[in-house]
Amino acid sequence: MAEGDLVVVWIDPRRVYLVKLERGKRLDTDKGSLLHEDIIGKEYGESLAIQRGKAHLLYPTLDYIYEGLHRPSQVLYPKDIGYMIYVSGIKPGSTVVEAGTGSGFLTISLANFVGNEGRVVTYDVREDMQNRARKNARLLGLEDRVTFKLGDVRQGIEEKDVDAVFLDMPDPWLVVQHAWSSLRPSGTLEVFIPTTNQLERVFLTMIQNNFVDVKAVEIIMREFQVKENATRPRTIGVTHTGYIVSGRKSIKGS
Amino acid sequence: MAEGDLVVVWIDPRRVYLVKLERGKRLDTDKGSLLHEDIIGKEYGESLAIQRGKAHLLYPTLDYIYEGLHRPSQVLYPKDIGYMIYVSGIKPGSTVVEAGTGSGFLTISLANFVGNEGRVVTYDVREDMQNRARKNARLLGLEDRVTFKLGDVRQGIEEKDVDAVFLDMPDPWLVVQHAWSSLRPSGTLEVFIPTTNQLERVFLTMIQNNFVDVKAVEIIMREFQVKENATRPRTIGVTHTGYIVSGRKSIKGS
Amino acid sequence: MAEGDLVVVWIDPRRVYLVKLERGKRLDTDKGSLLHEDIIGKEYGESLAIQRGKAHLLYPTLDYIYEGLHRPSQVLYPKDIGYMIYVSGIKPGSTVVEAGTGSGFLTISLANFVGNEGRVVTYDVREDMQNRARKNARLLGLEDRVTFKLGDVRQGIEEKDVDAVFLDMPDPWLVVQHAWSSLRPSGTLEVFIPTTNQLERVFLTMIQNNFVDVKAVEIIMREFQVKENATRPRTIGVTHTGYIVSGRKSIKGS
Amino acid sequence: MAEGDLVVVWIDPRRVYLVKLERGKRLDTDKGSLLHEDIIGKEYGESLAIQRGKAHLLYPTLDYIYEGLHRPSQVLYPKDIGYMIYVSGIKPGSTVVEAGTGSGFLTISLANFVGNEGRVVTYDVREDMQNRARKNARLLGLEDRVTFKLGDVRQGIEEKDVDAVFLDMPDPWLVVQHAWSSLRPSGTLEVFIPTTNQLERVFLTMIQNNFVDVKAVEIIMREFQVKENATRPRTIGVTHTGYIVSGRKSIKGS
Repeated sequence: MAEGDLVVVWIDPRRVYLVKLERGKRLDTDKGSLLHEDIIGKEYGESLAIQRGKAHLLYPTLDYIYEGLHRPSQVLYPKDIGYMIYVSGIKPGSTVVEAGTGSGFLTISLANFVGNEGRVVTYDVREDMQNRARKNARLLGLEDRVTFKLGDVRQGIEEKDVDAVFLDMPDPWLVVQHAWSSLRPSGTLEVFIPTTNQLERVFLTMIQNNFVDVKAVEIIMREFQVKENATRPRTIGVTHTGYIVSGRKSIKGS
Repeated sequence: MAEGDLVVVWIDPRRVYLVKLERGKRLDTDKGSLLHEDIIGKEYGESLAIQRGKAHLLYPTLDYIYEGLHRPSQVLYPKDIGYMIYVSGIKPGSTVVEAGTGSGFLTISLANFVGNEGRVVTYDVREDMQNRARKNARLLGLEDRVTFKLGDVRQGIEEKDVDAVFLDMPDPWLVVQHAWSSLRPSGTLEVFIPTTNQLERVFLTMIQNNFVDVKAVEIIMREFQVKENATRPRTIGVTHTGYIVSGRKSIKGS
Repeated sequence: MAEGDLVVVWIDPRRVYLVKLERGKRLDTDKGSLLHEDIIGKEYGESLAIQRGKAHLLYPTLDYIYEGLHRPSQVLYPKDIGYMIYVSGIKPGSTVVEAGTGSGFLTISLANFVGNEGRVVTYDVREDMQNRARKNARLLGLEDRVTFKLGDVRQGIEEKDVDAVFLDMPDPWLVVQHAWSSLRPSGTLEVFIPTTNQLERVFLTMIQNNFVDVKAVEIIMREFQVKENATRPRTIGVTHTGYIVSGRKSIKGS
Repeated sequence: MAEGDLVVVWIDPRRVYLVKLERGKRLDTDKGSLLHEDIIGKEYGESLAIQRGKAHLLYPTLDYIYEGLHRPSQVLYPKDIGYMIYVSGIKPGSTVVEAGTGSGFLTISLANFVGNEGRVVTYDVREDMQNRARKNARLLGLEDRVTFKLGDVRQGIEEKDVDAVFLDMPDPWLVVQHAWSSLRPSGTLEVFIPTTNQLERVFLTMIQNNFVDVKAVEIIMREFQVKENATRPRTIGVTHTGYIVSGRKSIKGS
């Protein structure tokens, strides 16, 4: 690791820190402190003794970034993003449109999977959110794959022939027709919404607008607490994030 | 679409067909028939009228392949694979080891996401399974990214410095140490197992073998039946597939 | 057991029979046959050898009756009824109003718990359903506790000062005000409905009509398949029955 | 309501108070205060204006008691107790054995449903827990139906021919044989345990000890947050309490 690199310092499940290495800086935790200088030169995967424990220096995969990023309005969880990306059909080289940008967590995830030759175009009406998301993308070295657009997808989507559209916004039904126009035939629309009312409305709007194989699901994740001879699901946790509606653009045969 | 191409013929949620186009062949369903010749020359995304309905010609994304493939012993579902791939940290260019190959559904999914410059090495002790999986990979044009190895990972994994190891086998605890040796520091082990006993055993074995941030989860998917003013989860469905245990390789600091 | 008694013949989880003992009759199953005469004189809890297995003669508790009754339109499951009865606050001696009667499964359950000094009044607009439910109640010796009324609760509920009202019908919001009038102050309304739309509508109607502590829940039951060292939830099962909305009548202070 | 009566003061879902009325006492909350004297003479179900809201005076049903009781080691929730009582087959007049007593919440629930002519015998090895539970039962006027026994059910159960046995203890498999001896033929054993290891062990022990129709389930409750056009499950909540194993005593035919 060199100065400027990103590292996840993992001490235990409750102490996970996303750190950008800068000489002269220090990470302080209640289990002990670490000088960034002591991390520079180490390899990802190594561990260092600290005052009251051990600090593991991990390469920042997406879910760690999730733990490490401040996420004021975050509702999309790894369980949801993993499913959406999987069923969206995207792959290295894909072009994807996303709205709204929000904290940029989905943006970063999409950028990771479309690779160097892929492209993510992300719309948001709030400039502050976009700046924040751009900063996060830069931190991860994914900025080049992302186009940040200040604008309202309810007014239309400029890109054409895209492979997938991802929507995480309060009124996605207002964008369904624009998404259809933007997608290549057979392309995928993925929508994330927290309430059953939104679920119904966007689902029916998709059916009416020539999407086929429209599916609505909820992904529930249960975490386990594992001890020898005493294994059980955790007692308290996240009980709901949102629903996912997916569908594919169909056009009339020629 | 040209001869030899793969297409998903989607009529309704219960009638989904994965078809390899060959002149002179015909797809017969209880809603009507389609000559492959009538599909050749069409674009993905188009729909064709059939006797009692409409056939939508969709590009075969991974979950459609899942619906279309015969899968005798399939337990891994899109909900599980999407999550595992997401938290594994893989991306275009990654090198991944998998065991056992099984029907090749996970193999294909991994190959999709590691891209042209990535590599999937998949082990299985059964030659018939590997042949079947190789055929599936070829069908999807992903064969070049996959190395099929006839062998038992419980005896060791030949590859070194890999980014992630995926295990879907009855006794994964016998492979935890081999996976650790095979992974690069900070690399990820993803294990899928159906019972709570296996969950506990592989989790504890990982803790004992220098994996950190070991997490055990269950991903539950609920499907919804959406009608105007009558939206609800489906009545009958899949209630369990398996558990996922993830962890990352940690090494002693130099 | 004597002639006329009810017994559950339990052979295995898939072979459960609710039988009314009559001399000269025979129970035929693919595991073997049993003459009612061979059961008469036995004690509940005894088992008898049959051709290919063992028949256990169990006392008919409510959930066995559930398994044994033909239930064409049954959606209420023991998991739901158990919860509703528990939070309803009923006990031996309570007076309860129910609508609609349906197959009478909830009727019988309520009659079981209010005891000899309690009373269940059940409304239905369909005479055939009521006859069927009456027959079921008689079979269980609970008929004396139940008043069957042919009528539409949307037009009003005649009973006053009742302890609880249970609604299992498509448009319960039309009965919320009548239920309020029928209940004693502090009494409980329990509503069962399958869709999220009904959930929202009845919940809000209750809030508007002076019910307090209004709660909406879903009770999900997961069944386990237990084997030594191979314990796991079942693969396929019921994924949704309905939602339960509960609330209590509040009146202005004097 | 008279002095000495129990009342639930419900202000909103987060402000629920179980109060025993005593002249001269006062209930203080951050929404305002209430003199017990102002409640005495009122009817259950009435509401009183307080400084910043409304106090609803509700009759204490079991789930409210649950909210109101201090419950240091409580893991059994209404969703679990409702189901266990329902499938146990108990009714007014039943005799039930329970161990351990714990906070007495299950004891009180059982006493409620067996009625005046029923009986609950509850064992615990800790005298302090029993005293606390006895106090709770007295508070609810249910003390006469309950026999508190200081003792260890792993050494045996004195009562014979009981209708049901309920176990909520760490090692219930040590009591399975004693429960069998204590139950009448066809009687029910209900066991509550938090881990999958305990689930497996007690299930298999029951199968080996002549219990039939042994079933293991988990009851999951999801709470909903209902607003007009914005209905959804709650975000954070209880994700696990425990598993329930049920079975019925079978004896050899005479």
